[in-house]
Amino acid sequence: MSDAIRVFEVGPRDGLQNERQILATADKLWLIRSLRDAGISRIEAGSFVRPDRVPQMADSDQLQGALSAAAISGEFYYLVPNLKGLERAMAAGVKHIAVFTAASESFNRKNIGISVAESLQAIQEMVDTATRAGLQVRGYVSTAFGCPFEGRIPAVQAQKVIEALLALPMVQVSIGDTIGVASAQGVDAVIRPLLSQTSANRLAVHFHDTRGTALANSLRSYELGIRTFDSSIGGLGGCPFAPGASGNLATEDLVYYFKEMGVATGIDYRKLCEASLELHEKMGGSHSQARVISSKALQAYQVNCQKNTAWDS
Amino acid sequence: MSDAIRVFEVGPRDGLQNERQILATADKLWLIRSLRDAGISRIEAGSFVRPDRVPQMADSDQLQGALSAAAISGEFYYLVPNLKGLERAMAAGVKHIAVFTAASESFNRKNIGISVAESLQAIQEMVDTATRAGLQVRGYVSTAFGCPFEGRIPAVQAQKVIEALLALPMVQVSIGDTIGVASAQGVDAVIRPLLSQTSANRLAVHFHDTRGTALANSLRSYELGIRTFDSSIGGLGGCPFAPGASGNLATEDLVYYFKEMGVATGIDYRKLCEASLELHEKMGGSHSQARVISSKALQAYQVNCQKNTAWDS
Repeated sequence: MSDAIRVFEVGPRDGLQNERQILATADKLWLIRSLRDAGISRIEAGSFVRPDRVPQMADSDQLQGALSAAAISGEFYYLVPNLKGLERAMAAGVKHIAVFTAASESFNRKNIGISVAESLQAIQEMVDTATRAGLQVRGYVSTAFGCPFEGRIPAVQAQKVIEALLALPMVQVSIGDTIGVASAQGVDAVIRPLLSQTSANRLAVHFHDTRGTALANSLRSYELGIRTFDSSIGGLGGCPFAPGASGNLATEDLVYYFKEMGVATGIDYRKLCEASLELHEKMGGSHSQARVISSKALQAYQVNCQKNTAWDS
Repeated sequence: MSDAIRVFEVGPRDGLQNERQILATADKLWLIRSLRDAGISRIEAGSFVRPDRVPQMADSDQLQGALSAAAISGEFYYLVPNLKGLERAMAAGVKHIAVFTAASESFNRKNIGISVAESLQAIQEMVDTATRAGLQVRGYVSTAFGCPFEGRIPAVQAQKVIEALLALPMVQVSIGDTIGVASAQGVDAVIRPLLSQTSANRLAVHFHDTRGTALANSLRSYELGIRTFDSSIGGLGGCPFAPGASGNLATEDLVYYFKEMGVATGIDYRKLCEASLELHEKMGGSHSQARVISSKALQAYQVNCQKNTAWDS
């Protein structure tokens, strides 16, 4: 297995969806182009959910059209909650979709109003339709380590749901620490048994950074063999269960940390930081990008590092 | 070696010193009492530096007097920059002091105006005087992984300074990532060779969380055998080189993470969070306590966890 990591950028969807301000389609196009320029090729671009419920994502069909028209290469994923959403996505020319369920029954019911078993059934139907049409599918399992309503989730309970998705023809299943409560112990308990039965490339991890734990859990996941990490530019996106707290793992932090470890990321860190700063301005400085504030200082630091060391490229 | 970690709380000094608002002596006394009540016994309480330069610490002699008068038990450390500061500390009845230097020549000169060699000489004189008077001494090595002026610091350069302090009769040397740039690679490079020649109990780590790296580096340090971790309640304290960014590793994050791993901390997490929330209010909600915001949500989560699991006590 390669030592290199692969970043799966979720900012344009999981990030922006949780911000109050709605970014214009042209700005989303700019953001995705900037992420591509920085070297990120797999990006969650939008979702086909109810526009009245999630107005931030109401323009996903236009965005996909704009990406096609601009001939921007890459794998652009869109979240679909049900067959109706899938139909809308396919009508918009989407080639990559993401489907989701949860390890916690309470969370799944509060999030989408159905049981985990019902959502697995719905996912199977979506995957059937999508794969017959030649689409690639990614799966998410939320609250795989802990749930705001049930507390800590037993590893076997999470594994059952993850395994149910892995049994379907999905390119990858992303294991989510939705409220940022996992520790290295939980990472071991959930992921280690999965890696004995499936290729590491079919697994990704999605850590929220509510309590500063995301990089520690990423490090442990990497030690176990995981190579795909979900993250969001600028740490974009909050968590509804911890208002005001930082949300997703910031892509800058992820890339910085692994680069500093000497691990290949394929990403131009400077371009990434510049895009994050510009995004911060476009959002009117209003959103929860904790990390962007230090980007300028860090860039100066990086320049100094380059004088001193061998492994910067 | 025990699996348990020991928290060295730096909030009342390293934290408060970097906040604009000055906390009253009575509030500092309340804070230290609250930290003691939560189970933290080793606390950096203040410093004997120039009061005109660091007004936040101008009341350190009164604070030490108040701690003695209130008969609050524990090891209360005070930072001293030179013999004059040491004399003031001793006159105030201080029993534990902390001395400091840096791995980076440029940082040391900008911070205290002398070379690293000169500061090591000054430290030796302070340690001589302090130990003859029966005081215990702790040492800090700042910028052990990276410097804002020089970039990445070679591990051998940091080790030379750390070893120079370890050669003196100090209880512990704390290795500082002053601007939050270290990775697990740097932790390995600096700490692993030191552990082959000195007891892990004589080493501590002090990670800043400017880029969300502090817990990842703590995890790696723990894997190597380090058991003492410096942290600051609420993540109190900024870093002057990354304005607005979070500063110290939050004690709540540290305690949460290791507790969640099943590691003993000796700390009552709920009391710690309550103290952090109350401190946040006392500071007028103005300071950089990123973590405190989620403390309430986390407490609810913890209650749910206790229903489900065996290792909560």
